[in-house]
Amino acid sequence: NHIVVTGFGTSGQEAVNELLARGTDPREIVVIDGSDKALELAEALGCNILCGDSTRDRTLKDVAIHRARSMIVSAGRDDTSILITLTARHLAPRLPISIVVRNEDNELPARQAGATTVINPVSFAGLLLAGSTSGRHIADYMADLAASGGRVKLNERPALPEEIGGPLSAIGTGLGVRIYRDDRPIGFWEDGAKRLQNGDLIIEITEGDGDAPTDGS
Amino acid sequence: NHIVVTGFGTSGQEAVNELLARGTDPREIVVIDGSDKALELAEALGCNILCGDSTRDRTLKDVAIHRARSMIVSAGRDDTSILITLTARHLAPRLPISIVVRNEDNELPARQAGATTVINPVSFAGLLLAGSTSGRHIADYMADLAASGGRVKLNERPALPEEIGGPLSAIGTGLGVRIYRDDRPIGFWEDGAKRLQNGDLIIEITEGDGDAPTDGS
Ligand SMILES: [Ca+2]
Ligand SMILES: [Ca+2]
Repeated sequence: NHIVVTGFGTSGQEAVNELLARGTDPREIVVIDGSDKALELAEALGCNILCGDSTRDRTLKDVAIHRARSMIVSAGRDDTSILITLTARHLAPRLPISIVVRNEDNELPARQAGATTVINPVSFAGLLLAGSTSGRHIADYMADLAASGGRVKLNERPALPEEIGGPLSAIGTGLGVRIYRDDRPIGFWEDGAKRLQNGDLIIEITEGDGDAPTDGS
Repeated sequence: NHIVVTGFGTSGQEAVNELLARGTDPREIVVIDGSDKALELAEALGCNILCGDSTRDRTLKDVAIHRARSMIVSAGRDDTSILITLTARHLAPRLPISIVVRNEDNELPARQAGATTVINPVSFAGLLLAGSTSGRHIADYMADLAASGGRVKLNERPALPEEIGGPLSAIGTGLGVRIYRDDRPIGFWEDGAKRLQNGDLIIEITEGDGDAPTDGS
């Protein structure tokens, strides 16, 4: 029930820092990288480490990938990251795998390789740049929402028994923004949000964990 | 009253694509780059173009930077982007400037150089990677929120006269998530959000412009 992080470059490091900020025990994280220098950094954070090539079955079996809770793939090159994803998906059919790709053309192949979540930092930056021209707080709000620290954070959780039958707007834990029902999104303004059902997943904005100042906002 | 985009690499291109998706007239966009090939792409989109070095006063004066509505800086290198920001800030003291930096250490210098908004794609990717391990829809929701297309978008606007005195939760245009009052953030759960005041800026989630499928969500 551990988290496998493969590739400990800047994105991988930022991801682990945020996992620790969210309260993940570093002993539940296994970092795989081919560089001893990167692994020293990971070890200093208290993570488990393995020096190896994550495109090989052997390496992923060594970290018991089939028992992992989730996997983060950020190998620095899209081809490598996609091959790692394919390998991991083969060994662990139901594992949630999040991958970073740098080229938009590789987003679809990454999904086809079995990634659950595909993150394209360049594309995201472009969206935030454009958004910032129509409101100067937009990018800061997005950064706050993405991080667990600061004033707010985005949370995903199942609907609670006592919430079933009531509207999304009545949940007491935060501001409900979306429901996933049978994997289909339902917006806060839609009819489906008027009655929560058993099995619904709720996306909500809740108060953040504070501390980490989010860029002056 | 134009938007100046300096650096037409991948981030700059993504930003312009999103601006166009948001309905910006390409004739209101001026793209500056040193590469003819990049400028050909910008021209094909209908943007105005200028071949030049944006770290020089001369270049920025040629695009009438003091009359621009906003500026997007993504020169590919942090040192270059920061120098462009310094130069532009000197020529246009009140211009909103959004800058992309790749190294976390450069976020503060970028602000000190006068950037209004600092975007770090790598840091963002790390946050989204970490977030995706605690909910598999989190990253997709964030991507949808950042883009104007899809199901939702994040909007910033002044409070309307008829909204003054009422609570943030009562606005009819979307789901109010934050207020900026005298540049200070107020969360939807805070007392200050119970009565909107004249001059408040509202951050709200509204329905998106559709079409652009957001990664299977
Ligand atoms: Ca936050
Ligand atoms: Ca959207």
